[in-house]
Amino acid sequence: MSEVHVARRARLRERCAASTAHGGPADAVLVSRPANVRYLTGRAPGGGALLLGPDGRDTLFTPSDAGPAGGSHPGDALGDTVLGEADGDAVIAAAGIAARHGPHVLAVEEHHLTVARHRALSSVAPALRLADLDCAVEQQRVVKDEEEISALRIAAEITDQALGELLESILVGRTERHLALELERRLIDHGAEGAAFPTSVATGRNSGLAGHRPTERRVEEGDFLTVRLGARYRGYRCQIGRTFVIGTAPDDWQIELYDLVFAAQRGARESLEPGAEYREVDRAARQVLDAAGYAAALGRATGHGVGLEIGEDPRLSPAAMGKLDACVPVTVEPGVHLPGRGGVRIDDTLVVRPQADGGPELLTITTKELLAL
Amino acid sequence: MSEVHVARRARLRERCAASTAHGGPADAVLVSRPANVRYLTGRAPGGGALLLGPDGRDTLFTPSDAGPAGGSHPGDALGDTVLGEADGDAVIAAAGIAARHGPHVLAVEEHHLTVARHRALSSVAPALRLADLDCAVEQQRVVKDEEEISALRIAAEITDQALGELLESILVGRTERHLALELERRLIDHGAEGAAFPTSVATGRNSGLAGHRPTERRVEEGDFLTVRLGARYRGYRCQIGRTFVIGTAPDDWQIELYDLVFAAQRGARESLEPGAEYREVDRAARQVLDAAGYAAALGRATGHGVGLEIGEDPRLSPAAMGKLDACVPVTVEPGVHLPGRGGVRIDDTLVVRPQADGGPELLTITTKELLAL
Repeated sequence: MSEVHVARRARLRERCAASTAHGGPADAVLVSRPANVRYLTGRAPGGGALLLGPDGRDTLFTPSDAGPAGGSHPGDALGDTVLGEADGDAVIAAAGIAARHGPHVLAVEEHHLTVARHRALSSVAPALRLADLDCAVEQQRVVKDEEEISALRIAAEITDQALGELLESILVGRTERHLALELERRLIDHGAEGAAFPTSVATGRNSGLAGHRPTERRVEEGDFLTVRLGARYRGYRCQIGRTFVIGTAPDDWQIELYDLVFAAQRGARESLEPGAEYREVDRAARQVLDAAGYAAALGRATGHGVGLEIGEDPRLSPAAMGKLDACVPVTVEPGVHLPGRGGVRIDDTLVVRPQADGGPELLTITTKELLAL
Repeated sequence: MSEVHVARRARLRERCAASTAHGGPADAVLVSRPANVRYLTGRAPGGGALLLGPDGRDTLFTPSDAGPAGGSHPGDALGDTVLGEADGDAVIAAAGIAARHGPHVLAVEEHHLTVARHRALSSVAPALRLADLDCAVEQQRVVKDEEEISALRIAAEITDQALGELLESILVGRTERHLALELERRLIDHGAEGAAFPTSVATGRNSGLAGHRPTERRVEEGDFLTVRLGARYRGYRCQIGRTFVIGTAPDDWQIELYDLVFAAQRGARESLEPGAEYREVDRAARQVLDAAGYAAALGRATGHGVGLEIGEDPRLSPAAMGKLDACVPVTVEPGVHLPGRGGVRIDDTLVVRPQADGGPELLTITTKELLAL
């Protein structure tokens, strides 16, 4: 693992030596966003900061009272990265070290640093010129290596197992909240570090809502039941969403709506290939729902990247600029909610692969038939 | 409730009209930190922003694709606060509205806004002069009203119930991870909205670690078992920590260490009164452990405020400046961990009250005797 992180840091260093967001090269880089620190070091200390120093040395600073992330101590080996204990604020400590090497350009994450910390940093190290690293690490994270994809694959397996077990149990009469808790427990039972995001369970008129938080509503006969969950495994997060019908047979409107969302979702899945524009993929899902008159019911995006965070680049939306590469894992997750009635969501996590390799790799394999439970 | 929020906003407005952090009055205020938005409006839309406008009107902006926080729509009543839907970024939308009223000073939360958003804000509304609101809302939140304390009291009751039930079950052979999940399920069963923070269960050599994340280690005879949990109720979060011994009778070293941490914790609890300096309270706990040679084993703080967040002001630490007021809820939570052996933590949530009212009000009432389970 350690060599992987050394290589990632070398790539970032190279990129920053060439240029930063507002022009000009940087000879030192300060990374503070937790998922980025983890990507570059394999560690995720709360409040930690990684300095790629002007002397060619990498130092991971952890706050001395890191609490939950504690347990690392100065001198711990971390590949070729030295661990430094910061007396208080790791970002400020790192900037102090960078400044010791004379006036330099230090690239920082302006999309993560607060104005207050940025100002504190300028005042501890007034000789440093601060540049914007922009989202250089996020961009580097978009294409995954096989080790990352393998972690995502295991996360998806765990998720499928947890969901499969739930489908075998009796659902009528149980609350959304308890079903969500049970799913999260099953994720852990199967080896997840935790949930990738708060599990959503929505029944009846709540079904199909994008960010529904589980309530005390109980599952009833005839309901649509939407579940949305994912496991976190070695830090990597996947996402699945499925909609079921409770009882013997779905109503006609349920079958129609389900088929429509399914067609939209399949359209987007089938459009996933290296070179496809982000907005093309979104359009493949959106046009099906648009044509049926559900344009307004759709969210701003119909999918997004996943990895160390659940909502990563790219964003699959009408306004997104860019094209898919191979080895980019994304969700495809259109949905429709009809106020007062309920709705359907179908989410998968897939990895973009060239047609020559068999096309998109579906990680979340739970059936997408409309099951009556 | 709504009147409470109106009054809170009026206080903030008054304060900002008098002065902001870097001098000078502000005639508009933009609050973006979620707990602060919630404190001032009773709502917590993800990515929302509250504008106390120069025209005397308050507007809560929510991003149009709020997802989990969705469900609010333009025109919704919210006391005298108008709800506005922001097309994308709520902070930017709010700044745009503020700017419409001509050149003004807008106070923003520099400790929450990122450099990138602050810059975007300046460029949408170049005529606005941005000042720092600093931590004005956090300071306003320190002293709680009786409604807030009542929510904390219920949170503590729920927490005591969940912990009490766990103590009646068989613990030997179960993993830290499963015990933590069970505690979180019990919190929900008793009416919590969720856990106030990730539940920590630590056994054997892990016991007494401040921020221990539950592992697959199983509880064994002779272990110290440390649990740390809290319920969230109407947004308010409390904290309890207890240490038990597993098996028939504790070892001598376990009794000695327990008595010591208990004495330190009692010392700090007894020093809680209006007018007491934060660092005095810390010292009351710290000097007991210092004298026994455990200075190095202690964290930077031995307690902190609680409320809408689990780690609020004040911080009870040697460097903290300030004095306690009545109606400030704080934790008192000293602990010692001996590497390779384990340790003890005892955490309570209390409300500072004058001696005339009976002194500090203990919210978390689970026994602090050393139980052998």
